[in-house]
Amino acid sequence: MIWHAICLGLLFQLILVFGSNYPKNVNIWPMPESVELGNKTLFISKDFNLKTDASKYKDHSGILKDGFTRLLDVITSNNVIEYNFGKVDQSVLLQGIHVVILSEGDELQYGVDESYKLNIYPKGNPIYAHIEAATIYGALHALQTFSQLCHFNLNTRKLVRACGMYLGGQYRSFKICLLLPTLVGCKTYTSRHYQSLPMIKKVIDSMAYAKLIINLSRWRYLHSQDCGMVLIQSQNAIQWLLQLKFYAQRRGINVLAELDVPGHARSWGIGYPALWPSKTCQEPLDVSNDFTFKLINGVLSDFSKIFKYRFVHLGGDEVDTSCWNLTPRIRNWMKQKGLNESTAYEYFVLKAQKIALSHGYEVINWEETFNHFGNELDRKTVVHNWLGGGVAEQVVKAGLRCIVSNQDKWYLDHLNTDWQTFYMNEPLENITKPEQQKLVIGGEVCAWAEHIDVSDIEQTIWPRAAAAAERLWTVPDKLAKDPNDVTSRISNFRCLLNQRGVAAAPLNLSGRGAPTGPGSCYLQ
Amino acid sequence: MIWHAICLGLLFQLILVFGSNYPKNVNIWPMPESVELGNKTLFISKDFNLKTDASKYKDHSGILKDGFTRLLDVITSNNVIEYNFGKVDQSVLLQGIHVVILSEGDELQYGVDESYKLNIYPKGNPIYAHIEAATIYGALHALQTFSQLCHFNLNTRKLVRACGMYLGGQYRSFKICLLLPTLVGCKTYTSRHYQSLPMIKKVIDSMAYAKLIINLSRWRYLHSQDCGMVLIQSQNAIQWLLQLKFYAQRRGINVLAELDVPGHARSWGIGYPALWPSKTCQEPLDVSNDFTFKLINGVLSDFSKIFKYRFVHLGGDEVDTSCWNLTPRIRNWMKQKGLNESTAYEYFVLKAQKIALSHGYEVINWEETFNHFGNELDRKTVVHNWLGGGVAEQVVKAGLRCIVSNQDKWYLDHLNTDWQTFYMNEPLENITKPEQQKLVIGGEVCAWAEHIDVSDIEQTIWPRAAAAAERLWTVPDKLAKDPNDVTSRISNFRCLLNQRGVAAAPLNLSGRGAPTGPGSCYLQ
Repeated sequence: MIWHAICLGLLFQLILVFGSNYPKNVNIWPMPESVELGNKTLFISKDFNLKTDASKYKDHSGILKDGFTRLLDVITSNNVIEYNFGKVDQSVLLQGIHVVILSEGDELQYGVDESYKLNIYPKGNPIYAHIEAATIYGALHALQTFSQLCHFNLNTRKLVRACGMYLGGQYRSFKICLLLPTLVGCKTYTSRHYQSLPMIKKVIDSMAYAKLIINLSRWRYLHSQDCGMVLIQSQNAIQWLLQLKFYAQRRGINVLAELDVPGHARSWGIGYPALWPSKTCQEPLDVSNDFTFKLINGVLSDFSKIFKYRFVHLGGDEVDTSCWNLTPRIRNWMKQKGLNESTAYEYFVLKAQKIALSHGYEVINWEETFNHFGNELDRKTVVHNWLGGGVAEQVVKAGLRCIVSNQDKWYLDHLNTDWQTFYMNEPLENITKPEQQKLVIGGEVCAWAEHIDVSDIEQTIWPRAAAAAERLWTVPDKLAKDPNDVTSRISNFRCLLNQRGVAAAPLNLSGRGAPTGPGSCYLQ
Repeated sequence: MIWHAICLGLLFQLILVFGSNYPKNVNIWPMPESVELGNKTLFISKDFNLKTDASKYKDHSGILKDGFTRLLDVITSNNVIEYNFGKVDQSVLLQGIHVVILSEGDELQYGVDESYKLNIYPKGNPIYAHIEAATIYGALHALQTFSQLCHFNLNTRKLVRACGMYLGGQYRSFKICLLLPTLVGCKTYTSRHYQSLPMIKKVIDSMAYAKLIINLSRWRYLHSQDCGMVLIQSQNAIQWLLQLKFYAQRRGINVLAELDVPGHARSWGIGYPALWPSKTCQEPLDVSNDFTFKLINGVLSDFSKIFKYRFVHLGGDEVDTSCWNLTPRIRNWMKQKGLNESTAYEYFVLKAQKIALSHGYEVINWEETFNHFGNELDRKTVVHNWLGGGVAEQVVKAGLRCIVSNQDKWYLDHLNTDWQTFYMNEPLENITKPEQQKLVIGGEVCAWAEHIDVSDIEQTIWPRAAAAAERLWTVPDKLAKDPNDVTSRISNFRCLLNQRGVAAAPLNLSGRGAPTGPGSCYLQ
């Protein structure tokens, strides 16, 4: 018959396969700084385990242990279990991973050393893979890389030499903007679209696969009137955020909070109508009202208890100040202060910056602030580009730091932008001086949620965010000159996401379309 | 400030809210046979627990315990935790659920009694909710219903009387067709589209929310040539199926296997070319070859060890027999036997039925078999309608059983069919005699996977499958005459799926489109 009797109870083993002709067959995404390929297939032992001898990091809070458990989950849930009908020779049996972490702490902060070395040499008895990392977070990345090397040996039993790989110190930060409701459960008002905690957790899991970090932005800040909320709901919101942050942190994912002012904050006035210029002219926030800044101070004070990341994002984009002139009270106030709409906008942004600085944050602001009054911005400001290309060049020339998100290439909600465009977007374009290159601290792909809710968030993000992840992680000279050279490898990553239950879209469509017909995920 | 200090460590409680004006505010989906509404809000205790005194079922395999753990997961992960700043009065504190199951066994089979009573009376000290069910599977349904009653008390602290509800013995079966690869991991060939185990598990979870069962269909049956597979991969496939079946069974979800013959089986010939009429004319399976039936016997023998459900589905649809006449060998064989294409098709289907019966199965066949030779079908045959309306009427008149899946209303891959159409499709249309009504054993919504892979399977299924679920579960006189009367309740269910991380699509689109603009999931 076609199937043999089911052999439950026998020793079962995972197979660890390395492709035979690097780099074509090394399906790691994003590609590490350096990879050396072996030629041996190792089998994962049934009692595959974690060893931490000589590690300075003691894992009191279980971050490493949990990461190892997730590794086992992901490689076993991924259809990779095979029943081995014979005994596997000790010389090809991988008994576990030996992790050595060189520093004690587990603080997750901007600039934390996330590099690692992963060596899988088929030597020793028993054989262990070896991870060496400066911090627990580098070790987590190494486990993700390891998981991508494990798969079911379908085509061949050929043994290939084991590989070692190394990701150096260089890295660039990366974020995804998600629009979140501050107050979950409010039926009528959410921030564009409700994103549920289980889905955000799922997105965080998948971000860890691609080694990304997260940016939560465009908060709605509501109060009781609009959906019957009372103070206690704010406690609920804090609890929600703490859960989210805890979940992300244990996966090595930083959470950056973005609080856009004075624009994109109209919803705050639903709870606090005093923040609106008037009932009929509702944004930007009232620049003339002390309460506006008292509230920003309160929010940032609360934020500082939750979000310990070095930066806070204060927005400053798309501010149409005409309501200020149309509202007599504000017009008079500006006149008194000798301000016009443009200088009042500057006044607002700089005042908000000062508040954030007083809470220990460095500030990120959207590029409009730089374009209008770049010289006045606090020198610790990071300018966030979005309007198009060529901005980073200007920002770093002015000695400020920059994050690149040019919308023509890195906005996920632009559904006509294909993964190749995401891959080819170079944040350092035309920036050649090393000291200026250092000022480009990273890039961010943005998923603005007008047309994104729980039903389509995953396929909007993936696989295109992965293309940007490689651009941000991989050393420039290892990046493909032609994105089509990495189609096979990124399609492998897309299938890996699918295998792990993540709804990553087909690659052969620009946005998040359905597959055009029957076929393998490796070819679509 | 807006947020108070974070009050960790205080007693926290879930709130259980019942709507105040039934049935409008009872957001249970699908609606039970009878619901009686109370007027009291109960708070879920921090140490909410499961009690099983007096239960005949002993839960040796932990099905109930796991179901209760999932209940806790789903209500706590769902943003429903609230910090209670005072002490909750014992008179409104729900301490747990007392489950009484009247039968010992846990066999999951067609016709198993899935009814339950769920009473949440605010009486007793401490107060327990009460579930009484004939079987463990009725109790699992009751826990799902309970989970839908728990939510964060957003609008009001008003106490409403607790409600009791009851789902009677009546039910109709329900299935979703999924196209699965038999051999996971094969890179080039899958059954239309690869569906990964983690995603199928997620779909099973969501099916349990809507109280559905599953039909796995259109297997690919491959062998080594096409992707380097060897025998051991079949073991892997069995393991894969067993995992899936175990996972489903513990959630009360039956798995029905569908093995379409002689059509829709072209892929088998990739592994066994002898099954093709010829290399250039590859389907249907060769009716003249003994090996064809030997193979079907082998597969069904294997199936019978895995799938213990009373039925197996043998297909029989869309058979274009012209290859049989075009292939000299088969043409000669037919001539010898005195068969033409039409009677050879009948010969094939009836022979396959006999094989299935010999393995203890009752057989489901697509309606073409009934349309061509209904009188010859085994009397245990269940005829599966798909071509359009009015078929069930003919089938039950002929004394055979029927499953309804008319493609114009219950095919999920028809993206222009809206949820209202799914809701209004009545399997008993024009069937008035009770003994004939009994022969309509259920309905099935089908998700054929030409354009469905991991990236869009969830939004293709939900929320439309839920509309059909209510049609199949709810007693006819409780069903809405106008589907728009239940828009609010089904949108609530869609949001519940979103809250639980399921990518259910907006309701205000016919298929699985993206939200048209910002807005609440309750309104889209």
